[in-house]
Amino acid sequence: MLAALHNGTVPRAEARRGTAFTRGRRVLAETMIRDLHAPGAPSPASFGRKAATLARLHAMGAPTMPGFAISAEAAARFADEPPARVLGGELDAALARLGDEALLAVRASPVERAWGGPHAVLDIGAGAGRLDALAARLGLRAALDARRRLIQGYAVGAMGADADAFEAALHDALKDAGAADEAELDAAALERLCARFLEIVEDETGAPFPEDPRAQLEGALQAMARAWASVSARLLRVSRGGPERGGLALIVQSMAMGLGEGLSGAGRAGFRDPNTGAPRLTGRMLWQAQGDDALSGARAPVLVGREERIAAGAAAPSLEETAPQIADALRALAERVEHELGDAHDLEFTIENGALRILSAEPMRRAPRAAVRIAVDLAQGGAIGRRAALLRIEPRMLNELLHPTLAPDAPRDVIARGLPASPGAASGPLAFSAEAAEAFAARGARAILVRVETSPEDIRGMHAAAGVLTLRGGMTSHAAVVARGLGVPAVVGASELSIDRARRVLRAPDGRVFAEGDMLTVDGGAGQAMAGAAATVQPEFSGPLAQLMAWADEERRMKVRANADTAQDARVALGFAADGIGLCRTEHMFFERGRINVMRRMILAQSDEDHRAALERLLPMQRADFAELYRVMRGRPMTIRLLDPPLHEFLPHGEEEIADLAREMGVSAEELARRIADMQEFNPMLGKRGCRLGVTLPDIYRMQARAIFEALAETWDGDQIVDPEIMIPLVSARREAQLIRGHIDEVAAEVARETGRAPRYRVGVMVETPRAALRAGDLARDVDFLSFGTNDLTQMTYGLSRDDAGRFMRDYVNAGVFPEDPFHTLDLEGVGELMLIAVERARAADGSVSIGLCGEHGGDPASVRFCELAGFDYVSCSPFRVPVARLAAAQAAILARDDEAAEGAAGAREDEAAQ
Amino acid sequence: MLAALHNGTVPRAEARRGTAFTRGRRVLAETMIRDLHAPGAPSPASFGRKAATLARLHAMGAPTMPGFAISAEAAARFADEPPARVLGGELDAALARLGDEALLAVRASPVERAWGGPHAVLDIGAGAGRLDALAARLGLRAALDARRRLIQGYAVGAMGADADAFEAALHDALKDAGAADEAELDAAALERLCARFLEIVEDETGAPFPEDPRAQLEGALQAMARAWASVSARLLRVSRGGPERGGLALIVQSMAMGLGEGLSGAGRAGFRDPNTGAPRLTGRMLWQAQGDDALSGARAPVLVGREERIAAGAAAPSLEETAPQIADALRALAERVEHELGDAHDLEFTIENGALRILSAEPMRRAPRAAVRIAVDLAQGGAIGRRAALLRIEPRMLNELLHPTLAPDAPRDVIARGLPASPGAASGPLAFSAEAAEAFAARGARAILVRVETSPEDIRGMHAAAGVLTLRGGMTSHAAVVARGLGVPAVVGASELSIDRARRVLRAPDGRVFAEGDMLTVDGGAGQAMAGAAATVQPEFSGPLAQLMAWADEERRMKVRANADTAQDARVALGFAADGIGLCRTEHMFFERGRINVMRRMILAQSDEDHRAALERLLPMQRADFAELYRVMRGRPMTIRLLDPPLHEFLPHGEEEIADLAREMGVSAEELARRIADMQEFNPMLGKRGCRLGVTLPDIYRMQARAIFEALAETWDGDQIVDPEIMIPLVSARREAQLIRGHIDEVAAEVARETGRAPRYRVGVMVETPRAALRAGDLARDVDFLSFGTNDLTQMTYGLSRDDAGRFMRDYVNAGVFPEDPFHTLDLEGVGELMLIAVERARAADGSVSIGLCGEHGGDPASVRFCELAGFDYVSCSPFRVPVARLAAAQAAILARDDEAAEGAAGAREDEAAQ
Repeated sequence: MLAALHNGTVPRAEARRGTAFTRGRRVLAETMIRDLHAPGAPSPASFGRKAATLARLHAMGAPTMPGFAISAEAAARFADEPPARVLGGELDAALARLGDEALLAVRASPVERAWGGPHAVLDIGAGAGRLDALAARLGLRAALDARRRLIQGYAVGAMGADADAFEAALHDALKDAGAADEAELDAAALERLCARFLEIVEDETGAPFPEDPRAQLEGALQAMARAWASVSARLLRVSRGGPERGGLALIVQSMAMGLGEGLSGAGRAGFRDPNTGAPRLTGRMLWQAQGDDALSGARAPVLVGREERIAAGAAAPSLEETAPQIADALRALAERVEHELGDAHDLEFTIENGALRILSAEPMRRAPRAAVRIAVDLAQGGAIGRRAALLRIEPRMLNELLHPTLAPDAPRDVIARGLPASPGAASGPLAFSAEAAEAFAARGARAILVRVETSPEDIRGMHAAAGVLTLRGGMTSHAAVVARGLGVPAVVGASELSIDRARRVLRAPDGRVFAEGDMLTVDGGAGQAMAGAAATVQPEFSGPLAQLMAWADEERRMKVRANADTAQDARVALGFAADGIGLCRTEHMFFERGRINVMRRMILAQSDEDHRAALERLLPMQRADFAELYRVMRGRPMTIRLLDPPLHEFLPHGEEEIADLAREMGVSAEELARRIADMQEFNPMLGKRGCRLGVTLPDIYRMQARAIFEALAETWDGDQIVDPEIMIPLVSARREAQLIRGHIDEVAAEVARETGRAPRYRVGVMVETPRAALRAGDLARDVDFLSFGTNDLTQMTYGLSRDDAGRFMRDYVNAGVFPEDPFHTLDLEGVGELMLIAVERARAADGSVSIGLCGEHGGDPASVRFCELAGFDYVSCSPFRVPVARLAAAQAAILARDDEAAEGAAGAREDEAAQ
Repeated sequence: MLAALHNGTVPRAEARRGTAFTRGRRVLAETMIRDLHAPGAPSPASFGRKAATLARLHAMGAPTMPGFAISAEAAARFADEPPARVLGGELDAALARLGDEALLAVRASPVERAWGGPHAVLDIGAGAGRLDALAARLGLRAALDARRRLIQGYAVGAMGADADAFEAALHDALKDAGAADEAELDAAALERLCARFLEIVEDETGAPFPEDPRAQLEGALQAMARAWASVSARLLRVSRGGPERGGLALIVQSMAMGLGEGLSGAGRAGFRDPNTGAPRLTGRMLWQAQGDDALSGARAPVLVGREERIAAGAAAPSLEETAPQIADALRALAERVEHELGDAHDLEFTIENGALRILSAEPMRRAPRAAVRIAVDLAQGGAIGRRAALLRIEPRMLNELLHPTLAPDAPRDVIARGLPASPGAASGPLAFSAEAAEAFAARGARAILVRVETSPEDIRGMHAAAGVLTLRGGMTSHAAVVARGLGVPAVVGASELSIDRARRVLRAPDGRVFAEGDMLTVDGGAGQAMAGAAATVQPEFSGPLAQLMAWADEERRMKVRANADTAQDARVALGFAADGIGLCRTEHMFFERGRINVMRRMILAQSDEDHRAALERLLPMQRADFAELYRVMRGRPMTIRLLDPPLHEFLPHGEEEIADLAREMGVSAEELARRIADMQEFNPMLGKRGCRLGVTLPDIYRMQARAIFEALAETWDGDQIVDPEIMIPLVSARREAQLIRGHIDEVAAEVARETGRAPRYRVGVMVETPRAALRAGDLARDVDFLSFGTNDLTQMTYGLSRDDAGRFMRDYVNAGVFPEDPFHTLDLEGVGELMLIAVERARAADGSVSIGLCGEHGGDPASVRFCELAGFDYVSCSPFRVPVARLAAAQAAILARDDEAAEGAAGAREDEAAQ
């Protein structure tokens, strides 16, 4: 399997969709015309989604109109050949079944709904010669109404006339008649309008309007096929992610007339709340109307549901109130459709003199929360399986459910846009520094921390803040990564803003300025910074969502751990049901107040004694941190990464801070500043950090190992309460891992002797340099686990700093230089290949080595899928992304583990979606 | 071949040596004892190098002493078993051939000379019972001298006695006798000394001295075998790069007595000047002496050659003066040895009552210049082939021949040590800034530029300086790379020094201070900074060296190009016979005075017009640069790399410079400083540089392409005079190369239209990110050549900045974490593997794509060898390294191309070395 992945990089799901196409193509050409009321479902690949759904609606007893579908293959030929020649006798036979007198509608039935398609042409057959017969059936006014609709629709849709001329003529007619809308026009006015329309046709197109019904039909068929093949339509399809030459089938049906006597009208009804998914009758319709009239906005529509009408304060009675039996019929039918087609659908309907006609059923649009509720409802009702329900939910959708969001209707006074770095919305007073944010927090207000960019010293302030806004940095800048880790909404790289340091104000591009304390709002989902406070909606993690996640946990093979540095992080992670900690960054522990200066004295010590003395002061602090974490994580695995950042990151920058530290250390500020300057690096990312510290200054790692082991002894409860996994960062050579493992093992033996409590632990390496990936076979022989640090691995594989990439990543992705931001979704062709090489070599060297991923990609569904296919043991991500990863892991397992079953499920999904 | 390289990483040469071992091992155990005067050469693998050489000396008629060698396999068993039991009757027979009365010497004969071995034990057999017979032959005094030597030598070498006790007793004896050295002791004094020595043996070892000659012989054999197997000897061998358990054969010979009547003595003679390789009789000897007495320093030695004695101003007549016939015999023998063994040897000799005896011949130690002369002499004399001569010279040696060096005997007042970053030595006044160095140059003095570290703005100063000394940075820091490129001697990372900015002095660790203008000397070969000016020796590139390089050029397959940015560089490169330019870095052109501010205005422009205006001013400057380069390089290929560094590298840093530029640009200094600060990056190496500039700011690359093409038109001479190869830096995605190639092709078409001169050119990418290596197949489809930028590729594969690695690289290499500095010698296991993957994929995609390497590794012989094996078309390196690369390429071609012949040559070398 690895070899297969190695060669191609087509994700599974796409490959499968490809197969469905191929399957479809094989059955093409059996027949050109398919009766929509004949038994059996026509293939969507031949006759389009709409035709397939109509046939299934008819089969379940829905009152659909008789008609037939013309295959996409046949329709494609209409562009060059008259439909009659293409279809021959089949067309005559099919039309004969509909009867000579029927008005007809021609509708598009694309193979995939998302591809769109040309407008329907309605009322075909309402030529001059048929007017009397029509008037006899519907009344003269309705017959003329159908005729003027045909003339306009056909002229615009099939003859290329400009719609504006018809709209202008209609406008004149309404004015002449003193009518508010076209429903008020009487037969005489409509007759004059028809005459005027015929003139416009001749003026606009130079040809007379074809009064022959058969000519109208064939003209409409050919025009729709040609429109589909036009350059602009092809570009549009490509822009929607479809193929340039997708298939378009055409549907010919008897018209359901929403015009005429009795209760007649047309509209579209929904049956669940699009935001919550709860059952609720919604939608709009119009009396004396056809097709999409209710959505056109020309007349004030009638609401379908009573509740909705009351909520909207509308005066006109709803359809449910006017015709409760029709509303009941719609509701009953919708329930049946939902169950039989396996998804919630909207129904397009016409009421023809009191009789309900169904024109189409389309899957309803829904917000993430509704999607979860519907999937769970369907699975619980037996309409679909649990696996199908799990596959229904795009894992990223969960992001929106796990953070507060702006109320949908809240007004947004947007002052600048940036990158949506950490989801959720938050409002609070502007704070220009971490200290200010903490000060606000002390007064009970959570601030919006606004910085040019953040650094590790801002973490306390970010913790205290409600939201973060930076002017520089990309999706994986410090601010973005930390904010996601903390679950704090963040917008980064809002480069239109500027900070005027002198006046201590934030300046918006429109000239407005904001001082510290002014209210701001950030929407980390939309990447917007707003003036003022906006209302937010709190998330909930219960009900259908909790059920879905329980099912996900039953299905997934991979463990999902969280990146958590503190006991607080760990508790959040457990709240999201993480299986353990996959990355505990020990350096963050040193930034806390009361520690940072000890850390600095250790770093800047000039004698071995001072260095050791500082380490001895740090030891009990680290031990206490670990003990606290062990108690929270009791019984779960916990990966602790040894110190990683270059030491200069811990040093003070400002003059004041340097002066303070100098006083404490008893050296001159000048001397200290010089020593600090000496430690600066050109490229800290590629400098003396990670295990390079451990190799050159082993006492630091030995102190950390001691803290890890002593904390195990301290929290001993019959046995050690967690099994720590000690991770060595930034390895590039086998000897580094060997040397540091030697130190760890030595310290473990010392602590065992001193405490009488021999620790169990594992030692592993973080694979984050290309060289470590290439040499993973060697490394696996010396350590117990490998964890891919894909942030750094991506940086080094591309030669691209995540912090600096923000300046051009958007341009790059927009220009298609990179298909996606590789810090967001694993680059399978480069980074992914290195990972596969590494996994293959590591497993060949030692089949028992554990393999995981920690880093931002652990919360990215596509990356999680890759890890499942590559046989990873776990992924680890920010606590707030754990549910996303759990669902993604379940989906990947369903698709990968049980290949046969998945093939079936995917097939079922196709069919469901085909309705 | 690639696949083989891919799987293993054992360099060829080592693999071959391994084969030689195996071959040797197969013939072991044929016999345990080998007569040194029997016909045929004993195998060095069984009987050691010394035995093999002695047999060949005998065969060519040299007066060697009779004797036999005991195989290493047999000798190894002596540690546990008495030699008589191991050797049985063979020993008795061999000893019988030497006669009962002969005094014997036992000498070590290790399989490889470099492994060393225990001291010889001489005068075996001079027991109490043999004294009279010995006295009858040599005289009583010499007999007693031999006996006291045996007692001391055997007691120390075979019985483990402390040498100091014997030395003290000798000292007492000299004092008692009022003698200056042991040669003045008379027989009576020596008799007393022997008696004293026998007491010391008993005191020291608790055992009596064994007077039985056979017991002495077996004791010496066993003791030497045990010493070889001891722990300390094993460690010593490993530290010298040998195997822990190497083979030691033993040689037993009749003693050549340098004691006694007539002309008797011993010494060692050389026949060529060790510095120049010119014929010259050298060496030392002593009358009435044995073995290494002349080298021990106990007595003032007699010089062998007359010239050398006169040059040394010594009073004692040389051997050549005392015994011209012996000197002539030595010289004649040395010539024969040189021709027959195919190398210049020193001869160890004894004169026994006027008769010359040869004890051994060992390849002479020699300086690089001598090595070249000797190899060329040998090949011209027909002693060895030209290929063998080429393989004799370690290419790195040439470095020393191409730069001025310190006179060998010049006194060195070393004030600090650093890394030997750029070879050669130079003296000059201290300059603390590039400006100061230029000022000195203007006054005709080339300075030593002393900086904490250098930046691109220092390049002018480095050009003007005689040498460079930095306090920070590694072998691939800016200072080191640029200095090597310029051929300026440099010492970098001399961290013991400090610069006191306030007082503007350089402070040495011993407290001395140096002000601007004080004379300093740097030795870039030794990595030393010295006070004062020291005498230097100028290099020459003629005579034997020129001959050797001509042979190299006949043998090599790969082209060797130079990295050259300016016409001056290019002329230096042509002086070293470079085949073309492999890397012309266009950015250096912008740092020149009069350009840098235009460049800055382009970068900081706030309107498109300002940006374009600045580019239009840069265009003629670049065009002139290229035209000048084309004229120098006429007819040779030339690879031009488009702008690579991040733009902020061009911006001013100091307040004054910023103020100047602000004035010029008409903005406030504050505003300009803000814009400059905004452009800073966290990790410039991984930032917005290389083709990321070209993609996001295409006008810059378009201007450069235009300059390249317009310069072709300008220098047109019937046809364009060079074929430029345009190289796109820092590619990580195929689309980048496509976009930029598109711009280049467009500009080429424009220039062709405008000038009527359509340029021929090739476009390629620099492979310097791991991702570009992995995607090389894609890239090869879009471009004409790939050039590996191994500096950056190494940085990214290791996740290690070359500028920051200096802080710990030495520790890392010393601790064996990295076997070598990967910026110096290609890391075959990581970087090399990526390169092989890339070559394989690129060639598979397009067999015609050219593949080269540019960067520091192009001048590293091991890396050049790798490129030959991997099928590269060329390597490119600093001009001063071109000869090194030419020789390395020739060696690699000899070893790789003609595998059979190379096998033979390697075998021959083994044999030669075995002499």
